[in-house]
Amino acid sequence: MLSKNKIKQLRSLHLKKFRRSEGLFVAEGQKLVFDLLDSEMKVREVFCTPELIATVEGKGFNPKNIHTSQPADLKKISQLKSSPDIVATVRIPEHSLSWEEIAGDLCLALDGVQDPGNLGTIIRLADWFGIKNILCSEDTVDLYNPKTIQATMGAIARIRLHYGNLPNYLQWANEMEIPVYGTFLEGEAIYSASLSPNGIIVMGNEGKGISDDVEPFIQHKIHIPNFPADRMTSESLNVAMATSITCSEFRRRMMPNKS
Amino acid sequence: MLSKNKIKQLRSLHLKKFRRSEGLFVAEGQKLVFDLLDSEMKVREVFCTPELIATVEGKGFNPKNIHTSQPADLKKISQLKSSPDIVATVRIPEHSLSWEEIAGDLCLALDGVQDPGNLGTIIRLADWFGIKNILCSEDTVDLYNPKTIQATMGAIARIRLHYGNLPNYLQWANEMEIPVYGTFLEGEAIYSASLSPNGIIVMGNEGKGISDDVEPFIQHKIHIPNFPADRMTSESLNVAMATSITCSEFRRRMMPNKS
Repeated sequence: MLSKNKIKQLRSLHLKKFRRSEGLFVAEGQKLVFDLLDSEMKVREVFCTPELIATVEGKGFNPKNIHTSQPADLKKISQLKSSPDIVATVRIPEHSLSWEEIAGDLCLALDGVQDPGNLGTIIRLADWFGIKNILCSEDTVDLYNPKTIQATMGAIARIRLHYGNLPNYLQWANEMEIPVYGTFLEGEAIYSASLSPNGIIVMGNEGKGISDDVEPFIQHKIHIPNFPADRMTSESLNVAMATSITCSEFRRRMMPNKS
Repeated sequence: MLSKNKIKQLRSLHLKKFRRSEGLFVAEGQKLVFDLLDSEMKVREVFCTPELIATVEGKGFNPKNIHTSQPADLKKISQLKSSPDIVATVRIPEHSLSWEEIAGDLCLALDGVQDPGNLGTIIRLADWFGIKNILCSEDTVDLYNPKTIQATMGAIARIRLHYGNLPNYLQWANEMEIPVYGTFLEGEAIYSASLSPNGIIVMGNEGKGISDDVEPFIQHKIHIPNFPADRMTSESLNVAMATSITCSEFRRRMMPNKS
């Protein structure tokens, strides 16, 4: 049985300001919590139904920090529609930004992505394509938003997000001669553009695309052509789909056998 | 002011069985409703705030079928979280399946895709890549689910979905010698596989992938490699992301200039 105060504290983590002041976020559901317990992330407390306790202990988690909880209590602390049988509080990690690492590999930069599901999908995609770092503008949706955390499907434990002043980040990249790419309607078709094995790929906001503050730092404007290529369309691809296609094309160029 | 009976009728369309018996679905929001009014889809009635009436009439829509509605009433009939200022009922079209068209072009087939948002995203993607037809297994989520309709962003007016017995469809394709592709973990890397300009690409259910009933009809098993290609991962790509990358790669092969 959880105390009223405990439930209140856990519910406060639904809000970004309390997540930041406590340095904690909430993860829900077996897949995600077990992935986090297996990762280097620091799980602080686990709240679960009695059936799951042995599994959590089996992962070497300190029994002192496991709280047997009734489904009704778990429902109260859940941030999602479906009620989980396990909830954990996890320490928000402090990632240091290594420009050396960024210079030598592919990296994503998000300029005001707003939808938590899109951010989660992009993190999962970065994990698939071996992209370890994502630079985020300050107005990009919070990574520890419950919908984002759930959409990452555990990739959150492997990808490092760095929130900060995106124009400053990119100016630095320019000075270090790291190639910076961005998707624009007037960009060169990605299938025929020259793409480097390292560099930063900037993806814009769902409605407004890449902002005026960021555009000056983009040296390579690219574009995903629709098909047939000369078909007029007022439509656009969703940012997560555009990121999928862009990352796939960058990585394809590095494959030993390609058609 | 809408009558209680009208509101009741419109709310009944939240359920698939009433959508099917009435042959109608509900579209919400300016972008989607205006796109549908501009398309060949048959909009039956429009419910909107007084400010929007001139725009709807400007699209040649019969003023007799426009109902001035208060925001409170629109909220009552809305199926979404945000309250729209315009809602329309639209006739569910009857598409005939042209095997000649399918034989000569690229086509998608969905084997039990369950998430309405994923289906909407895939429809939008098909529109981008000029794929006109999507074959759907009977257990694929209903196209006229409000979340799907909204996620299509109007592409629904241009793409034809055919629900039916997917193994039967694919057996027919096999007999007609239409190439059938499907994504499997043990498939050939898509970047080096031979891909034809026509054919059917089968995408599986979010959790279970392609079903045992469908697998025998797939001649070409393909796979999106992660990066680096030899990195072990238990993770998978979301079906909408996998569809993005697969369609992009098929269409890339047909581009006149490619790297």
